[in-house]
Amino acid sequence: MTSTTTYTSRLFPLDTMDVPGGTETVLRGGRHLFPLLPQAFAGIRRIGVIGWGPQGRAQALNLRDSLAGTDIRVAVGLRPGSSSRADARAHGFTEDDGTLGDWLAVAGESDLVILLIADAALAAHHQEIFAALKPGAVIGLSHGFLLGHLRERGGDFPPGHGVIAVCPKGMGDSVRRLYEQGAHINGAGINSSFAVHADPDGRAVDLALGWSVALGSPYTFRTTLDSEYRSDIVGERAILLGAVHGIVESLHTRYRLVGDDEVTAYERSCENVTGPIARTISRAGLRAVRESLDATGRDVFDRAYTATYAPAREIVAEIYDEVADGTELRSVILAERRLGARPMSRIGGSPMWSVSHRVRARRDTRDLPVDPFTAGVFVATMTAQIDEFAERGHPWSEIVNESVIEAVDSLLPYMHARDVAYMVDNCSRTARLGARRWGPRFHAAYEQIAYPAADHPADAALLAAFAAHPVHEALAAAAKLRPSVDISVT
Amino acid sequence: MTSTTTYTSRLFPLDTMDVPGGTETVLRGGRHLFPLLPQAFAGIRRIGVIGWGPQGRAQALNLRDSLAGTDIRVAVGLRPGSSSRADARAHGFTEDDGTLGDWLAVAGESDLVILLIADAALAAHHQEIFAALKPGAVIGLSHGFLLGHLRERGGDFPPGHGVIAVCPKGMGDSVRRLYEQGAHINGAGINSSFAVHADPDGRAVDLALGWSVALGSPYTFRTTLDSEYRSDIVGERAILLGAVHGIVESLHTRYRLVGDDEVTAYERSCENVTGPIARTISRAGLRAVRESLDATGRDVFDRAYTATYAPAREIVAEIYDEVADGTELRSVILAERRLGARPMSRIGGSPMWSVSHRVRARRDTRDLPVDPFTAGVFVATMTAQIDEFAERGHPWSEIVNESVIEAVDSLLPYMHARDVAYMVDNCSRTARLGARRWGPRFHAAYEQIAYPAADHPADAALLAAFAAHPVHEALAAAAKLRPSVDISVT
Repeated sequence: MTSTTTYTSRLFPLDTMDVPGGTETVLRGGRHLFPLLPQAFAGIRRIGVIGWGPQGRAQALNLRDSLAGTDIRVAVGLRPGSSSRADARAHGFTEDDGTLGDWLAVAGESDLVILLIADAALAAHHQEIFAALKPGAVIGLSHGFLLGHLRERGGDFPPGHGVIAVCPKGMGDSVRRLYEQGAHINGAGINSSFAVHADPDGRAVDLALGWSVALGSPYTFRTTLDSEYRSDIVGERAILLGAVHGIVESLHTRYRLVGDDEVTAYERSCENVTGPIARTISRAGLRAVRESLDATGRDVFDRAYTATYAPAREIVAEIYDEVADGTELRSVILAERRLGARPMSRIGGSPMWSVSHRVRARRDTRDLPVDPFTAGVFVATMTAQIDEFAERGHPWSEIVNESVIEAVDSLLPYMHARDVAYMVDNCSRTARLGARRWGPRFHAAYEQIAYPAADHPADAALLAAFAAHPVHEALAAAAKLRPSVDISVT
Repeated sequence: MTSTTTYTSRLFPLDTMDVPGGTETVLRGGRHLFPLLPQAFAGIRRIGVIGWGPQGRAQALNLRDSLAGTDIRVAVGLRPGSSSRADARAHGFTEDDGTLGDWLAVAGESDLVILLIADAALAAHHQEIFAALKPGAVIGLSHGFLLGHLRERGGDFPPGHGVIAVCPKGMGDSVRRLYEQGAHINGAGINSSFAVHADPDGRAVDLALGWSVALGSPYTFRTTLDSEYRSDIVGERAILLGAVHGIVESLHTRYRLVGDDEVTAYERSCENVTGPIARTISRAGLRAVRESLDATGRDVFDRAYTATYAPAREIVAEIYDEVADGTELRSVILAERRLGARPMSRIGGSPMWSVSHRVRARRDTRDLPVDPFTAGVFVATMTAQIDEFAERGHPWSEIVNESVIEAVDSLLPYMHARDVAYMVDNCSRTARLGARRWGPRFHAAYEQIAYPAADHPADAALLAAFAAHPVHEALAAAAKLRPSVDISVT
């Protein structure tokens, strides 16, 4: 897949990032590039952002701010009866000035139509939206789901329209929040990947890059829609959400069973992952987690890592197969049908969450040390996902963003502020369904296979592979492109 | 689906069983019917049993014994390099007398070809086997998997061949063991369902009934291949195996967390389900479990039942959708591909199993009482499956066999002798994969949703629906057809 990661631009100055085995092209973002935006958006007078969920809102606001002073208008399209209308108006998108309207109407008058509605809605209504498009309008996506869905049905995008994707590697909330920080710290934002699926008029690359710059992406790397889809859907079922839930629930139980009180068990498990472990990785990389431990801690880390890696890898491989095969997507569609308007049951009622407020109250009283066992389990799972993606040929930028950066810079800080349970119960439907399916698989594998083996000797070759892993180089290269901003959520 | 449950036979005396909302036809079995077998097998000179797994062995032996003295020959066909050859010879099937051979050769010379190889092998090789068939040979199955697989691929069975199924509702080991008991206690055996998928010459019903009688089925009820497939694949992922594993693991943890030592926690969870709960249901039905408790116990039961029912039902519905849709089958095929020769990781290493020998040592020292909380969780899950199957239109005989009888008469006694973990690690590949996928879902739902709510007030309407449930009538009717035999495994 390396060939898809190099690209050229007639407009933007590009960099080359060293990655294991070669280089990848990246576009370093920043507000100093905003003057290039009118050229990047040549031929685009109207942008229609369809949907006002977290991504829709963030992207509409970022685009409007970035394109202020140009004659490119950003409008928001909502489905009939949408409950988001009031909030969109409160943010200055109104029917009166033509920047708020029915989704098909907005789609029909836009030159770039960015589809940011929920996956299930997209699956149900994409035909109507496609039918509404102006000739030559460009279809924009931030997620590869629709490609997977079309493929599952033997369909395709309508011919004659460019199809591009710009996919921020973080939650919508972070996309807006860090963009706003970017007003003070140039370059703050969430990284994005971009893909060109169809390019009838040769404009697609610069248009996609312009969109990404306008969103505030510190760096933009290239991928394919298919690769994005797989890494994104697998990632949220693994280290980004599903496995995290399985890790913290199973560790919490384990610590309780060895005699820890509830607060200690929570601090050693959930608080540790979302707090010191995430911060250490974000600041100093994966190896720093182990290096921050004393000799005893490193031994515990090594044994926990050894016991966890293979069972975690097995599950990531299973998830990957089912995502690539379309099977996972079918289960998402089935679940939506079955659930209908019924809300999904919430996982936030399980006992561990009842003490989280007590743990929060203690936060400022001391620095929580990294728990070596927790760290071994978490880092092994993260490395398992990294290795699976590498084996499947994903670009290194995509691997580090979907397996490390999105977790430690976006999701885990959010969970630190709110709770892992809150996250699982409140993220996108597709992610929720995936986390609910696969979180328990990780939980069971840790409890039944990994933890019983965690006192066995560490596997020196496995740990050596971790120490010498090409990901550390790729992560360091990506970190250089990222300005230091305070990623914590208040 | 009720119309498929009545049938007539030119040969066998049929009974009518009362079920909720009507009646179902059943054939009561027994050795007194063996003289009718030659007529039932008219046109069948040679039966080829393809495969020597637990079902293959049991069916080949039962058929040969039942047809002794007729001129119908039973031969066993094995794939090249099969490791079962020695065991088949040890049981008297030999190349010399033409009762043991290569699977395609045996298939090619048989008038009734019973396909009892593993699902994955069937998926991979059914085309070759179909191509080897004699004109007019009848295809026999004991499982609807192949129908699901063919449908998934847009294929079908080869025209011109009868396609019948006789599906014993129990493990192969039980099919043989209870048949042998039937030499002393007439009618002992494992119930079977039968289905006729294709019947070009009108012989199919009596042939299927004859096969079922020859296997020793105490009673035989009618279903469709599709219905059999769904109930069987869903059942093994739910109350028969997957949910049982989730129940005992989550309960064991719960009891440890409230302070029970390991032995007590095991006795309250796993030992309770496989021992006194299974025996009570087998002997006296589902309501008897609650009725055996004192007032305090019934209150605990009612609250646990109330808290468990909805989360369990949600998962059974999800499993059902995915089995019916073909999604679950695709995941089985993917898993086989991914695992290849690699063995599946075993779950028997988790801590709870390490004390099972100590618990066994105590077995004869006292009668273990039914644990009310465990009973509420188990019975609620069982009822959830019953209700889902009823809603989906399954015949009542199929519902009670796949949801109750197969569990309490076959699987749970086996687990009592060996361990739930042993069962999960040693049953059919398809069942193992299914239990590993779905067991953790039940576990997580119990831990995160049900148990936190188990001290809430009981839902009187839900318990009233349980008390008045039509399944009790159906179960009692089925029990009348079953001779009392000692189902325990030594």
